[in-house]
Amino acid sequence: MSAPATRWQVRAQRPVAYDVLKTPALFAPHNDALLAFGRREGARRFVVVDANVMRHHGAAIRDWFGQHGVEVHLVTHPGGEECKTLEACQDLVCELDTFPIHRRDDPIIAIGGGVLTDVVAFVASSYRRGVPHIKVPTTLMGYIDAALGIKAGVNFNGNKNRLGSFEPPQAVLLDPAFLPSLPRRHLLNGVCEIVKLAVIRDRALFAQLEADGAASIAACFANPAGEAILDRAIGGMLEELAPNLFEEELARKVDFGHTFSYGLETRHGERLLHGEAVLLDILVSVQIARQRGLLAGDDAARVFALVGRLGLAPDLRVLDSGTMWHSLLDRIEHRNGQQRVPMPAGIGQCVFLNDITRRELDAAVPALHARIKADHELVLEC
Amino acid sequence: MSAPATRWQVRAQRPVAYDVLKTPALFAPHNDALLAFGRREGARRFVVVDANVMRHHGAAIRDWFGQHGVEVHLVTHPGGEECKTLEACQDLVCELDTFPIHRRDDPIIAIGGGVLTDVVAFVASSYRRGVPHIKVPTTLMGYIDAALGIKAGVNFNGNKNRLGSFEPPQAVLLDPAFLPSLPRRHLLNGVCEIVKLAVIRDRALFAQLEADGAASIAACFANPAGEAILDRAIGGMLEELAPNLFEEELARKVDFGHTFSYGLETRHGERLLHGEAVLLDILVSVQIARQRGLLAGDDAARVFALVGRLGLAPDLRVLDSGTMWHSLLDRIEHRNGQQRVPMPAGIGQCVFLNDITRRELDAAVPALHARIKADHELVLEC
Repeated sequence: MSAPATRWQVRAQRPVAYDVLKTPALFAPHNDALLAFGRREGARRFVVVDANVMRHHGAAIRDWFGQHGVEVHLVTHPGGEECKTLEACQDLVCELDTFPIHRRDDPIIAIGGGVLTDVVAFVASSYRRGVPHIKVPTTLMGYIDAALGIKAGVNFNGNKNRLGSFEPPQAVLLDPAFLPSLPRRHLLNGVCEIVKLAVIRDRALFAQLEADGAASIAACFANPAGEAILDRAIGGMLEELAPNLFEEELARKVDFGHTFSYGLETRHGERLLHGEAVLLDILVSVQIARQRGLLAGDDAARVFALVGRLGLAPDLRVLDSGTMWHSLLDRIEHRNGQQRVPMPAGIGQCVFLNDITRRELDAAVPALHARIKADHELVLEC
Repeated sequence: MSAPATRWQVRAQRPVAYDVLKTPALFAPHNDALLAFGRREGARRFVVVDANVMRHHGAAIRDWFGQHGVEVHLVTHPGGEECKTLEACQDLVCELDTFPIHRRDDPIIAIGGGVLTDVVAFVASSYRRGVPHIKVPTTLMGYIDAALGIKAGVNFNGNKNRLGSFEPPQAVLLDPAFLPSLPRRHLLNGVCEIVKLAVIRDRALFAQLEADGAASIAACFANPAGEAILDRAIGGMLEELAPNLFEEELARKVDFGHTFSYGLETRHGERLLHGEAVLLDILVSVQIARQRGLLAGDDAARVFALVGRLGLAPDLRVLDSGTMWHSLLDRIEHRNGQQRVPMPAGIGQCVFLNDITRRELDAAVPALHARIKADHELVLEC
């Protein structure tokens, strides 16, 4: 008899492969991008949309699937941060159980904002231990940020995104035709994430925003310069995400603006959109970077000037350093014991800090108030 | 201005690496296997055990962590199929929120049966989109099957394992010292999965079971022959799992016994342990294979004889072909549109069937009843 075994090794590689595709006029009869993945013969599609999409596009979606001979089960999830819950996931799973789909070739399709795609991706990742899904972002936030990566999740027990998964989609389909119907506040919500990318990693994108940002916002990015801004933001985001999809590296440039904002958003969720909280974090961070001499006065002034020029109106009243400090402490757990806070060291340049103090944060808030007048008009001198 | 981009490709590989380690006397002071993963300096460990483990080993576990200077938060999950729920996961997540751990180097430790390790692995995979976990199986089912792979999950909406994930553990620690305290029924529960492996892929293991199985069960596998049986079962299971961890290939030999059992277990959960349902499926499958001439009469007789010799007592009263047929239909969705039922074509040889009919199933049940007397004494003639 051979000696007893004491160790077995399991080694494997899981490939991840998906495309982000721009495909205008998604619901036009000739466009079959929505059926380019999964089976066509006998196809069944479970499609989840948010309330806004249902209102504006529900009929077009039904028509499109009808014209293509696909049995569709169209479900509405209300959307919005307060519906980013485990209960919403459970409802969707029960709906799925009423509409049997093949495990591998009937991808679930999520059409909506960042909350909707995050929730549906988590359902897809958990249903039968994972069925494929396709994301179709309809907000600017989804278009240039939330829908591009593989992070899925819901809020739980008072914490944002406490439950979730890393679940690669089968595809992300981008249709810029959704953007002009967005309320201005939601368009600006997405712009805040573009500003984030520009400040922390892309000086050229920053210049594009300075030159063409305001006009592009006015045109809902349906102008060539606006399209170029979105393309560059998407490309930059994916350059950051792709080599680190599963966040093996916890020091991430894309976490700029996502340290203090986490607590602000948890506390003031009814008042702040995600991008608005991120913008506040960016401004606090720029202030800290300025205080430390990481960022030259001219560069800090350019950031504040850009925020003003784009018509972003940060609500400084919600800033309190206690909430932000506790947010940083939670992020330390999340970032495995270190702060790892991305900070601009020049426009488009990133360093990571591990030694931000409560005192620095306390000093940054009144300094920011002094810089930005209460009426949200920006003070440009540095 | 450059032409607008229309497609971005995301390509990556996620490496999976974990060891299954045999490490007897896990809670002995000199054994530090439980701390071989994650940080030691400032270590915090969230440990989930089932009620049986708490009763028998709770004090030893606390002592062990105390002796090693580790802050431990020991939580009990009742265990048992009826507690394999999303509610149990939510309770564990709330407990986790009270005991902050680092995201990467404070692995959650699950010590218990297959249900416990499945539930905790799902919690670990979802908490903050994934924190590491270590599995310590304490039942034979866990030791040779449930804890070895990466499948995590809970039952939902009346369906077994409807929600879950593929979540590689950081390690699986095997301590055979847990086995002798198992009730005989739970020991035999695990033996059914060993029989499965032997029939569908390992003629030599089958011969080992014929020769030494009964004595090894009597010795709770603490004898050399018993240890050899377990080693071979574990090695064989991992040979099947490792190249197909994420079930890209849906025709899986290890699904032998897992087609009809799914429905039986869902319907008679209060009466059937998992392995008992698998055994029933094995016997029905052997009968179908015999009816088709896939399996020679001698081979079928050897399977039935082994089941008798090992003292396994299948409860044929729960067999009904309606439930089993619907179970097959559900498995067709799960196996993406085809039956893909593993069937023995000789002992240790597997073929996959896609054309099992309701009539065949209807015929198999009374034939099985005729073969196996109502008193569970096996009729060995074929």
